[in-house]
Amino acid sequence: MFFRQRQMAYHAKPEKPDPLFAKMLQEPLGGQWGEISVMMTYLFQGWNCRGPQKYKDMIMDIGTEEIGHVEMLATMIARLLETSPIEQQEDMAKNSVVGAVMGGARVEDAIVAGMNPQHYIVAGLGSRPNDSAGNPWTSAYTIASGNLLADFRFNVTAESQGRLQVSRLYNMTNDPGVRDMLSFLIARDTMHQNQWLAAIRELEEDGLEETPVPSNFPQSLEKSEVAYQFLNHSEGMESQQGRWAQGPAPDGKGTFTYVDRPPAYTEDEGQLNPVDPRTYGTPPAPVPPAAAE
Amino acid sequence: MFFRQRQMAYHAKPEKPDPLFAKMLQEPLGGQWGEISVMMTYLFQGWNCRGPQKYKDMIMDIGTEEIGHVEMLATMIARLLETSPIEQQEDMAKNSVVGAVMGGARVEDAIVAGMNPQHYIVAGLGSRPNDSAGNPWTSAYTIASGNLLADFRFNVTAESQGRLQVSRLYNMTNDPGVRDMLSFLIARDTMHQNQWLAAIRELEEDGLEETPVPSNFPQSLEKSEVAYQFLNHSEGMESQQGRWAQGPAPDGKGTFTYVDRPPAYTEDEGQLNPVDPRTYGTPPAPVPPAAAE
Amino acid sequence: MFFRQRQMAYHAKPEKPDPLFAKMLQEPLGGQWGEISVMMTYLFQGWNCRGPQKYKDMIMDIGTEEIGHVEMLATMIARLLETSPIEQQEDMAKNSVVGAVMGGARVEDAIVAGMNPQHYIVAGLGSRPNDSAGNPWTSAYTIASGNLLADFRFNVTAESQGRLQVSRLYNMTNDPGVRDMLSFLIARDTMHQNQWLAAIRELEEDGLEETPVPSNFPQSLEKSEVAYQFLNHSEGMESQQGRWAQGPAPDGKGTFTYVDRPPAYTEDEGQLNPVDPRTYGTPPAPVPPAAAE
Amino acid sequence: MFFRQRQMAYHAKPEKPDPLFAKMLQEPLGGQWGEISVMMTYLFQGWNCRGPQKYKDMIMDIGTEEIGHVEMLATMIARLLETSPIEQQEDMAKNSVVGAVMGGARVEDAIVAGMNPQHYIVAGLGSRPNDSAGNPWTSAYTIASGNLLADFRFNVTAESQGRLQVSRLYNMTNDPGVRDMLSFLIARDTMHQNQWLAAIRELEEDGLEETPVPSNFPQSLEKSEVAYQFLNHSEGMESQQGRWAQGPAPDGKGTFTYVDRPPAYTEDEGQLNPVDPRTYGTPPAPVPPAAAE
Amino acid sequence: MFFRQRQMAYHAKPEKPDPLFAKMLQEPLGGQWGEISVMMTYLFQGWNCRGPQKYKDMIMDIGTEEIGHVEMLATMIARLLETSPIEQQEDMAKNSVVGAVMGGARVEDAIVAGMNPQHYIVAGLGSRPNDSAGNPWTSAYTIASGNLLADFRFNVTAESQGRLQVSRLYNMTNDPGVRDMLSFLIARDTMHQNQWLAAIRELEEDGLEETPVPSNFPQSLEKSEVAYQFLNHSEGMESQQGRWAQGPAPDGKGTFTYVDRPPAYTEDEGQLNPVDPRTYGTPPAPVPPAAAE
Amino acid sequence: MFFRQRQMAYHAKPEKPDPLFAKMLQEPLGGQWGEISVMMTYLFQGWNCRGPQKYKDMIMDIGTEEIGHVEMLATMIARLLETSPIEQQEDMAKNSVVGAVMGGARVEDAIVAGMNPQHYIVAGLGSRPNDSAGNPWTSAYTIASGNLLADFRFNVTAESQGRLQVSRLYNMTNDPGVRDMLSFLIARDTMHQNQWLAAIRELEEDGLEETPVPSNFPQSLEKSEVAYQFLNHSEGMESQQGRWAQGPAPDGKGTFTYVDRPPAYTEDEGQLNPVDPRTYGTPPAPVPPAAAE
Repeated sequence: MFFRQRQMAYHAKPEKPDPLFAKMLQEPLGGQWGEISVMMTYLFQGWNCRGPQKYKDMIMDIGTEEIGHVEMLATMIARLLETSPIEQQEDMAKNSVVGAVMGGARVEDAIVAGMNPQHYIVAGLGSRPNDSAGNPWTSAYTIASGNLLADFRFNVTAESQGRLQVSRLYNMTNDPGVRDMLSFLIARDTMHQNQWLAAIRELEEDGLEETPVPSNFPQSLEKSEVAYQFLNHSEGMESQQGRWAQGPAPDGKGTFTYVDRPPAYTEDEGQLNPVDPRTYGTPPAPVPPAAAE
Repeated sequence: MFFRQRQMAYHAKPEKPDPLFAKMLQEPLGGQWGEISVMMTYLFQGWNCRGPQKYKDMIMDIGTEEIGHVEMLATMIARLLETSPIEQQEDMAKNSVVGAVMGGARVEDAIVAGMNPQHYIVAGLGSRPNDSAGNPWTSAYTIASGNLLADFRFNVTAESQGRLQVSRLYNMTNDPGVRDMLSFLIARDTMHQNQWLAAIRELEEDGLEETPVPSNFPQSLEKSEVAYQFLNHSEGMESQQGRWAQGPAPDGKGTFTYVDRPPAYTEDEGQLNPVDPRTYGTPPAPVPPAAAE
Repeated sequence: MFFRQRQMAYHAKPEKPDPLFAKMLQEPLGGQWGEISVMMTYLFQGWNCRGPQKYKDMIMDIGTEEIGHVEMLATMIARLLETSPIEQQEDMAKNSVVGAVMGGARVEDAIVAGMNPQHYIVAGLGSRPNDSAGNPWTSAYTIASGNLLADFRFNVTAESQGRLQVSRLYNMTNDPGVRDMLSFLIARDTMHQNQWLAAIRELEEDGLEETPVPSNFPQSLEKSEVAYQFLNHSEGMESQQGRWAQGPAPDGKGTFTYVDRPPAYTEDEGQLNPVDPRTYGTPPAPVPPAAAE
Repeated sequence: MFFRQRQMAYHAKPEKPDPLFAKMLQEPLGGQWGEISVMMTYLFQGWNCRGPQKYKDMIMDIGTEEIGHVEMLATMIARLLETSPIEQQEDMAKNSVVGAVMGGARVEDAIVAGMNPQHYIVAGLGSRPNDSAGNPWTSAYTIASGNLLADFRFNVTAESQGRLQVSRLYNMTNDPGVRDMLSFLIARDTMHQNQWLAAIRELEEDGLEETPVPSNFPQSLEKSEVAYQFLNHSEGMESQQGRWAQGPAPDGKGTFTYVDRPPAYTEDEGQLNPVDPRTYGTPPAPVPPAAAE
Repeated sequence: MFFRQRQMAYHAKPEKPDPLFAKMLQEPLGGQWGEISVMMTYLFQGWNCRGPQKYKDMIMDIGTEEIGHVEMLATMIARLLETSPIEQQEDMAKNSVVGAVMGGARVEDAIVAGMNPQHYIVAGLGSRPNDSAGNPWTSAYTIASGNLLADFRFNVTAESQGRLQVSRLYNMTNDPGVRDMLSFLIARDTMHQNQWLAAIRELEEDGLEETPVPSNFPQSLEKSEVAYQFLNHSEGMESQQGRWAQGPAPDGKGTFTYVDRPPAYTEDEGQLNPVDPRTYGTPPAPVPPAAAE
Repeated sequence: MFFRQRQMAYHAKPEKPDPLFAKMLQEPLGGQWGEISVMMTYLFQGWNCRGPQKYKDMIMDIGTEEIGHVEMLATMIARLLETSPIEQQEDMAKNSVVGAVMGGARVEDAIVAGMNPQHYIVAGLGSRPNDSAGNPWTSAYTIASGNLLADFRFNVTAESQGRLQVSRLYNMTNDPGVRDMLSFLIARDTMHQNQWLAAIRELEEDGLEETPVPSNFPQSLEKSEVAYQFLNHSEGMESQQGRWAQGPAPDGKGTFTYVDRPPAYTEDEGQLNPVDPRTYGTPPAPVPPAAAE
């Protein structure tokens, strides 16, 4: 059960509007690695958690924090759109915005061409739960597998991709208000990368899970001779130079070997057998026509 | 540029058909964490790689290997469908498969109800580039960000989720041929989890990247006072028990603190200003009707 | 900014597991008209609201409540999956679940065929942010247009479709625990239908908006002669029998008329002109080949 | 069964081409609330209708009319693209369009940067069944639930959102031909908002349905004590000021009450039980490794 | 502009209900190659047509016919669901449908497990604009490119895939009413395959287009030495046995040659250059941290 | 099983960067008819092939070649983005790119407004598996039906649409390096159109399949009187002028006839029967409320 405090977690006020940057800022809001993705991922991981209480609580804490990050970004975008290009034109009664672009040919108007048209047409100068290219957010961006190590690895990824994107956005604006909010988000992503890395260590120290995930699948049942082989599928040997090709594996259970030209472990070329002619597929040889009734 | 060898990488032959398991096996083929996802992810990471050659080659090696894994799963599924339920019925001329289910009421027929109908209707008893619920594969499952540490973290995740799913599937069948192939895939996922973990260490040792990603964004520009705070957004203090709430952070650059009741860092409640009435949104007070021309 | 209380809003405990009903219950969780849809719709409507404060607060209250409804459904589904079919079999070491279905032919096993396979394979017996057919939730289900009357009409719809679906589900189970939770959700949907209808009246009484939406677009600019005509596009005249075909229109601004055979208001048949041959489309007549350089 | 008349329902001829506005105009054609959405929604509602004939016919009339609206928009867009930027350049043999943008740096060329690239590359200067951001139309935008009151509420919404978007577009152009067509669409949306509101009254007067939908679910089975409570999930009491918080509810069956700090109706914190270890999820305590066979 | 006749194009009445077959029949209604796909494809091809009038009219004729095919399938599905499993149970007051499946274990109930749950929950026993796996229809299934030969080839494909699927469905039922309707659809697909093949010949005879599409792109500008080479990318030479590997090409403009081991036409291995460090990608060598401002 | 050669199939090097054209070039990479689509289509057709070996090998050869085309396009796009707009500005320390656009108003900056923002934010100046409007690639673009004639017709279509799009793109750039690569792709599409046309002839000559597809469905079972009728669903008779309306049909099995005003073959108007009231749909007449228990 959730409650809302009216203040936002942090400032979300631009110095001046910028409809083009509003489009860009949809990415960390509704993109693959945006705040909606981490909010929904963490909440579902928490609700599905069957592990110890400290993990469930920790996950829910961050999930709840992220709802507030969605709020900050949504608010910032609505404000970046606030003094819209529509207002900026004195001769609005005579010319439309886009008409002016086509006819009047002023440079400022070219910016309109780059706006997300749905910011005006669909949302009336509000934010959208979409990414910077206009794709709707989808829950296919999330995962809650029931296995916390597998999921915490995803979470480290999400915080890394997220911090990367926000850092790039930091360089696309020089609005002090926007940069101030981004500096907050970047700092929280620093925290969250560290937090999930710490949680991974905790899981391992608690003896709940380790590499390879899932660690309680009996390794005796896997085809062990290929479990530590690097298979070189290209010309050239440069891929032999890294620690993935020799020495002990990170799981402490095997040693990497390098196979220059990997063999096929079967003579099977994948030929399929014919099936009932009523599937109407192409058979190895012609069939008589009376295939239905 | 790519070439094909006719033998598959490993055996992909079931002892007997099983249309229901064929549906299940679509998940590691065309699901969020299936082989198409890793194939496409690794290939795009490789093609977009601006880092040292050994990384690019290593990434492309695995990407190329994964094409062969897609091949094995596609072949296995086509064979699990091979002796279709259609063929099993002697009185085929008189009864349809589904008609028989409704009328004749044999238990075997009930399995048909659980089949993926597109296996027969769309693919003619072949595999599909879809998941076990029938959703088409989408490139929204992939990432190639240009930052190898961010991406390798994703890759560890993908191999963890993938091995987890295949391990679950191992328990859903007792067909020796299917289990044999799954044991190969599980072993390769063991390798690939280890490989990406090793690659992460290599990146760090090469001085190319470290936590927090991206490490060359100046930390002086982030809001540093919140960069190592755990913010407790729930009742209760159980989330204080883990190493994410105290002690040194994994990046070696800060120390975790625990904030029981996180403050709002702003008085701002997110109110928005009115905009041009020609957006036709709801304003703070009534507006006169003549808002267009 | 949001906070979480550990108790759920209401009970979410089934008497016994039911993996098939768990699949069904995904619809009100992650379907087009499910709780994620109303949660996200209301939150974005609130964040984008430029109208009076009482509306913004009211919208945010419900949006926050809905997060808790998502929580209840996610929890219920995880519990309906809890004693999975896997556990029910004593001879698990010898037979797999699905293998047993194919070979042993017991009726109970047939239920497995109807399960959502991703509940086990992907989520490890947890809930998913998807609908009952397995489609991922998408923000394309939501709207926040900036115009509160247009949006409140959507909200009444969502609560109507939602209550309809939950009522249907009520008849698909006789588990007292499940029915208890559904009776809570049905009651809240009663409240929310009423609430949005009341909010529509409030908007009208506050003089902020009325039919036709948007009411501050000057009606003098619309093609007024067709603004109250019912156009009969079919054979037969039965569509003339309703109050949509005669008498005063609900907006109080016009009177319905019935046009039995609607005219075309133009002679234009939609022919298009030829374009630059370098578009390589099919022109009205053959073109010479040298169309590029 | 359907037939086509060659004249369009109304004029759809711009004064001059405008590729940027062609992009914008995709929203009311193929967007969430565009003409394809209402066409498909109404047709399916009509085909699935089990209610009285007058409703079915009325629904099909509008559904059929909307096919003609799709036609008008598709034609208008193709004409807005007709004299493409390609044609406007005399020195076409020497410079490409985009090359000229990069090198020649004329302001007009900047418009090209804002075009929907698929209008040229995919459709050869024709319209697309997509929205203004390029997302393909999806049937997930539609609903035909079998309950006419639930669906007519959707239809009022669709006509409200649609008229809102077209009104906004009216302000984005000053082409008299485009505005003329938009004024027709706006008028029809006025009609259709009124029509669906009238149809809702008719349904209620015919005794077929009323609030709360579905009205024939026995209200005795819902958790009645929460059926008319406003639950304040935020700080502050501004949400108490509307008619949703006090007085009789619109359905005439209850009275609103305001609950300032809503209680949890359960002590249940949503903890889940452990499941079969072969799900490989994270359990409350370490498990032995031999979890498969 | 379109009009509707109340009779359907053909009978659409099953002998008895069959909820499982209703699920299957969604494929030719709302699947990739279903009637909605051809309806929308043909309508958009017609509206975008810049070629001679006879083509535009012909395309619109079929597009309009297909609306009626959607109608027939939607009606048939609603009727296959009509006497739902719910009605079949006498003891409905005591047991729910699904509860009965879990407890009572009757074979008929197993069919319920295979139903599309959305047929009942979402559509109230009506059809859906989705495919047999429950995926919503998307306009990404369609094409209207402006080039009629390219599009007519698509149309032949659509009618081939469509007839194939309906033929398969014919074998999945023995209901005489369903088979009667399918025999009509199969015959119309016979017509439409022939029709589009005839239209392709007409286009060629009219000198409007020919192979390779687009034929008015100057072949002098293509890399002609590879325009008729078969490149063998596999081991083995079996692919040399077809007429694609030798003799005159179908376009009459070249002769096929077979290249056993295709060369790389470049020494370029695709290495990329480093970019501005503020993209925060992984560079070829370590970079100093001060990359932002 | 697959192997990789480090050289690409052909040159993929632009003379100079062009971020706007990089956006355009996503269409033949990740669009509906792009290289990922043909790669995945051909690979799945090959893996699912039950026909003679020469077909399977031929299909796999092209499928493997197409992986290399994806590689070329991905590389070209990454290079077109290489000298990013970011680098072009000397005063980067003071102004951000987008900030400069808003304030400084230089024409070059307007190009930035047209870039795909995800090229920078998500991919760090790399390519994306998306189309030119930013939509993710989806396997819904592909087909492998098991019937080779149906599928080869799709393949001819794909190569036609693909060549059409690349030809259009050829006219949108004058970069010699880009045009050189496009001339290679255009030539390969010439080959592949011819190849699939030749393969269709081969199938027919081998007696494996012919028009109408599927040819082994007994034509006696189709409603033969409508199998060769052209049904005129519009006013006017212009659609009678083509060879689709008279003379022998291409399959050699029937003769076209032209039906000016097609009849309904049924009196059935599609009325549906009422269903169990617990579906809560709208019935033909009011129902008593006690519909649940």
